[in-house]
Amino acid sequence: MAAILLAIAGMDPQPWQAQFRALAPRREVRLWSGPAGMPAAGVTIPDRGSIAYACVWLPPPGLLAMLPNLRAVFSLGAGVDHILCDPALPKHVPVVRIVDPDLTMRMTEYVVLHVLMHHRRQRRYDVQQREHRWYEHVQPPAAEVAVGVMGLGVLGQDAVQVLRRLGFQVAGWSRMPKQIDGIETFHGAHGFARFLQRTEILVCLLPATPETQGILCLDIFRRLKRDGALGGAYLINAGRGALQVDGDILAALEEGSLSGATLDVFPAEPLPPTSALWDHPAVTVTPHCAAASDPHALVANILRQIERHEQGVPLEHVVDRGAGY
Amino acid sequence: MAAILLAIAGMDPQPWQAQFRALAPRREVRLWSGPAGMPAAGVTIPDRGSIAYACVWLPPPGLLAMLPNLRAVFSLGAGVDHILCDPALPKHVPVVRIVDPDLTMRMTEYVVLHVLMHHRRQRRYDVQQREHRWYEHVQPPAAEVAVGVMGLGVLGQDAVQVLRRLGFQVAGWSRMPKQIDGIETFHGAHGFARFLQRTEILVCLLPATPETQGILCLDIFRRLKRDGALGGAYLINAGRGALQVDGDILAALEEGSLSGATLDVFPAEPLPPTSALWDHPAVTVTPHCAAASDPHALVANILRQIERHEQGVPLEHVVDRGAGY
Repeated sequence: MAAILLAIAGMDPQPWQAQFRALAPRREVRLWSGPAGMPAAGVTIPDRGSIAYACVWLPPPGLLAMLPNLRAVFSLGAGVDHILCDPALPKHVPVVRIVDPDLTMRMTEYVVLHVLMHHRRQRRYDVQQREHRWYEHVQPPAAEVAVGVMGLGVLGQDAVQVLRRLGFQVAGWSRMPKQIDGIETFHGAHGFARFLQRTEILVCLLPATPETQGILCLDIFRRLKRDGALGGAYLINAGRGALQVDGDILAALEEGSLSGATLDVFPAEPLPPTSALWDHPAVTVTPHCAAASDPHALVANILRQIERHEQGVPLEHVVDRGAGY
Repeated sequence: MAAILLAIAGMDPQPWQAQFRALAPRREVRLWSGPAGMPAAGVTIPDRGSIAYACVWLPPPGLLAMLPNLRAVFSLGAGVDHILCDPALPKHVPVVRIVDPDLTMRMTEYVVLHVLMHHRRQRRYDVQQREHRWYEHVQPPAAEVAVGVMGLGVLGQDAVQVLRRLGFQVAGWSRMPKQIDGIETFHGAHGFARFLQRTEILVCLLPATPETQGILCLDIFRRLKRDGALGGAYLINAGRGALQVDGDILAALEEGSLSGATLDVFPAEPLPPTSALWDHPAVTVTPHCAAASDPHALVANILRQIERHEQGVPLEHVVDRGAGY
């Protein structure tokens, strides 16, 4: 049977390796792991020709080009920017995104939790608790609050459905036109202004591509709806760190274009201990935990794809390299 | 047209009065308002015989008995214990609970927010943020986490549906047997032990009745599931303050039967500034704001019931005085 290379940087490879062993005991799975950012020059992979599949997280640039018989690359997380950024990435080998119900549900939990935190003024109540102060704020119903989700892939589509069930005015924006039952959708550059204008809580689930780099900037924040039911605009970024300009978020909070932000991802991760985001009273920082890859569910998913591929079934969720996701 | 008495203690009557004026400009609406706990002896209601309907919040005991032609009493909030506790309450007059989609959705928001806060370890991440510490905790999927909702009336039934959509193992407990699609239900005293045993996050939405008084006590907390996916048991009380024993919650947190609690209601409200609950790191205190009565939606609901009643349609959601809700 064709071998699998498990190449993992900057994360504990042990649970992944254990899961491959448990679910595919007869398949050869070779492990490389090391620190993030290491060049492939220092990596030795024995018997490279036998490797047909690579399952990777932050692989050293150049590593995949060293595998002459590679048939597919699987990402161990929701994003693929950590693979596509390799200039030596073989052009003909399909790169597969993870689309797994487990990952989708985790992301929906995170989005719903943080939309409700802003909507229900939980951070104000947290402050009052510290002050032993009993005071109830006026609470608009969800039906008067406009939530806007950027990115309507599998993750975005699930999140908007639950937000709609909770009664919010939900709209979505995507690069290409999408139709979703009961959800107002906008697309492309010309739909973007109208989408921002009606949105009080902006949820970003976009992939990192050259087009989306730095999209969450001061200009965008200024165009959100500040005079809606919540009396302010809020940002939730659970997409990719490269999308956001940390300094612009701080500036927007300072001038009032944003009233609060929940950030799970950052241009530099871990977020440097000196970042002003940590201590800002209106910012919630979480350590890129919105939708962690669970080896249990994801390895089963990858092995199923490999088996079907070997039986001649086309791979699912292959990345469009032009679009970058 | 028969007159309405609006009797409101301990809360600002102005938005309620304004809403009655706006929606029923031709109906006479007489207002009494004052501090909570005042006896009816000091209250003067002119032309008492013309009043057919009373819309009340914390009415002075004895007040409703002063109205000889009273046809119905409407509660301005989800509970009716503040009415039924009046020993002089006329026996033949129906007491009507508020059942309004607006109130239901607010309660579901609160329950979902706080279940996700515990499930997603948000309080741990809050502490880490204060310490500028980037560390990701192992996160079980919702499918491995058992949430149990006590009280399967209109509020409980809506909450369990959304929790199920998020993937949790949801069960419900009620006094009388209930069947809900896709939800495991328990009832009565003999179902209670099994319900507690399988529950990691206990959500309480019960009404306050002589039977439920102090039900949230140390004995109950000790029977929750502590060795489940979350590695601890959690309490969310958004029902009534009289259900809970504050000292037992603190004792359960101390000994580890509970790992955290979210409390919106308390035996004494406002929660006294000296209560140890305010400062406990594992407790979230909110000021009875889970499902605030919104005059906008609720007054329309009450007026609709009154108009239909005058056309001979039976009142809906009349309280069963024997059961207490």
